[in-house]
Amino acid sequence: MARLRARLSEAGLDGLVVSAPSNIFYLSGFRGSSGALLISSDRAVLFSDFRYRIQAQQQAPECEFREVQRGLLRAVGCFSQEAGLSRVGFDSAHLTCALRQQLAEGASGVELDVADGMVEELRAVKDPAEVELIRKAAALADAALAHMVSLLRPGAVEREVALEGEFFMRREGAEATAFDIIVASGDRSALPHAETTAREIRKGDLVVIDMGARVEGYCSDMTRTFAVGSASSQAREIYGLVYRAQRASAAQVRAGARCGELDAIARGLIAEAGYGDCFGHGLGHGVGIEVHEAPRLGRDEETELVAGNVVTVEPGIYLEGKGGVRLEDLAAVGDEGAETLTGSTMPPDLPIV
Amino acid sequence: MARLRARLSEAGLDGLVVSAPSNIFYLSGFRGSSGALLISSDRAVLFSDFRYRIQAQQQAPECEFREVQRGLLRAVGCFSQEAGLSRVGFDSAHLTCALRQQLAEGASGVELDVADGMVEELRAVKDPAEVELIRKAAALADAALAHMVSLLRPGAVEREVALEGEFFMRREGAEATAFDIIVASGDRSALPHAETTAREIRKGDLVVIDMGARVEGYCSDMTRTFAVGSASSQAREIYGLVYRAQRASAAQVRAGARCGELDAIARGLIAEAGYGDCFGHGLGHGVGIEVHEAPRLGRDEETELVAGNVVTVEPGIYLEGKGGVRLEDLAAVGDEGAETLTGSTMPPDLPIV
Repeated sequence: MARLRARLSEAGLDGLVVSAPSNIFYLSGFRGSSGALLISSDRAVLFSDFRYRIQAQQQAPECEFREVQRGLLRAVGCFSQEAGLSRVGFDSAHLTCALRQQLAEGASGVELDVADGMVEELRAVKDPAEVELIRKAAALADAALAHMVSLLRPGAVEREVALEGEFFMRREGAEATAFDIIVASGDRSALPHAETTAREIRKGDLVVIDMGARVEGYCSDMTRTFAVGSASSQAREIYGLVYRAQRASAAQVRAGARCGELDAIARGLIAEAGYGDCFGHGLGHGVGIEVHEAPRLGRDEETELVAGNVVTVEPGIYLEGKGGVRLEDLAAVGDEGAETLTGSTMPPDLPIV
Repeated sequence: MARLRARLSEAGLDGLVVSAPSNIFYLSGFRGSSGALLISSDRAVLFSDFRYRIQAQQQAPECEFREVQRGLLRAVGCFSQEAGLSRVGFDSAHLTCALRQQLAEGASGVELDVADGMVEELRAVKDPAEVELIRKAAALADAALAHMVSLLRPGAVEREVALEGEFFMRREGAEATAFDIIVASGDRSALPHAETTAREIRKGDLVVIDMGARVEGYCSDMTRTFAVGSASSQAREIYGLVYRAQRASAAQVRAGARCGELDAIARGLIAEAGYGDCFGHGLGHGVGIEVHEAPRLGRDEETELVAGNVVTVEPGIYLEGKGGVRLEDLAAVGDEGAETLTGSTMPPDLPIV
């Protein structure tokens, strides 16, 4: 909160309307589905409706609570005006046109300015307690993956394997999965963001498993690839290549590394081997309250990593109609290197189960 | 699609930008997490990124597909301009300020008008195939509830009962829960939108279970209340009252009934008995692709039900610090009455388990 207030002051704002649930949770602890937060130099006011009166006081004890019946953003606007604020920021990526209109109606006389990404920027740098929650989430996913791998065999159904993984994590204390678990087999493994289906796994299939847990609001993210029963020489080749690309990029993750350069390391190795067109997404992304957040490790990204970032490193090669390989670890960035939060082994050669 | 085009024409629009995932799914069948749909008098174009190229063609075969790398709404805007559209509508409740800005940048020369709720209005009236999916979802929830009730006893943990209910539905074919299952016991049953916690259920507790399944994109919604081991006379009293209120309102659900009047029937009975202040939410809401959608059955709502609406009827009484009762059935509105889609029995007297 102190860091945010310093940013507001630098930006010449005397208030900020926070409307994204993930940002509200980050700043206040409140996890209700409907709410808005107004931060000024000396106040933090949480607006929500009667359903969340008790929950708001429990989860966000450091905020004043204002109960609003209808027109949440109008109430935020009125409050800004009555509190004498003169320039209030809002995040244009998180406020709908309709709510922006409401806010303006309430805040007549107050200047409303676009102030994008201020909270996300803070969220990108985790403190040790946040890293600890992500570490816990990663450990739950590790254990669930081992269980899922034990179920991989010809005839196993993608959806049932995914369900078993989810149930495992939830029973062990995950509040949810970080995202719908991906179990993508055979030609479906060539879809970078495949949906899990009722497809039966066959001998010789590549199987990509991409999964994460959520613990007390924080996510993990990991991907492993397996072959079932047997593997083609091309499958072995692209696995080995993705492995080397993953390791080469991951080895350079540290404070000061440029995101675009990390991407270029993996991409260069894959392109040299002739598979440059088959790696159609970025190298990785930050993980925290959301499974995709800042920083982005993509082509030409100039951002430099800083200590406290938690990022994925996940190159892949996707051969349409044949199959794909993706390998992903999660790393907490430090000054001298990075701590890998993923505990599951990543064998250098395609594991055949 | 034909109904939507007729509406557009009435509104003097020659195009509509559809940005809410639920509305995109309704109109096209596409279920990716990122996309936008442009509907004009003779075209339906789905914009998404490379990740969804194959999925879009499978799920939305009747739409043209445009792959966009970055700036999805800018691309929609450019397309509108190139297609010669002159007045294009967008939904201000579903478009963020940032995306509205992108759209405007692409669509220079095109007039952009607020056109709120056009798709939601169509969605409120279900066709028989949609009702059938909701019926299936409701049946899954019925079966899961029976399983959950068998677990209710002193010492049972809210969260574990909820998890067992969810696993049951997912194993039996639900793609997800319609929302996080609520198991709220003891004084927590007095919170209308309680979160499920690690609380142990005690003898004499009221337990409110609010749950639904999702099947092929369609939700169900149902609430039942139980006492564990024993019940106070006040608990029996408010249960009986909520039961009579639920039945009285539900009996009047049919095409032509005014939503506000249905609410008033239940609210009147509860108020007459002296509990008027303890029923702090509306009587019900539409259910479909989203678990809360049009129409709203709330105080003073003038909307009349029409055949094809699917709505909940769910009065409640909440006694802070003591406990609460809510009873909710789901009904498909017909010309002469309504079909109750919830199959679980709703006993007239507080069931003690």
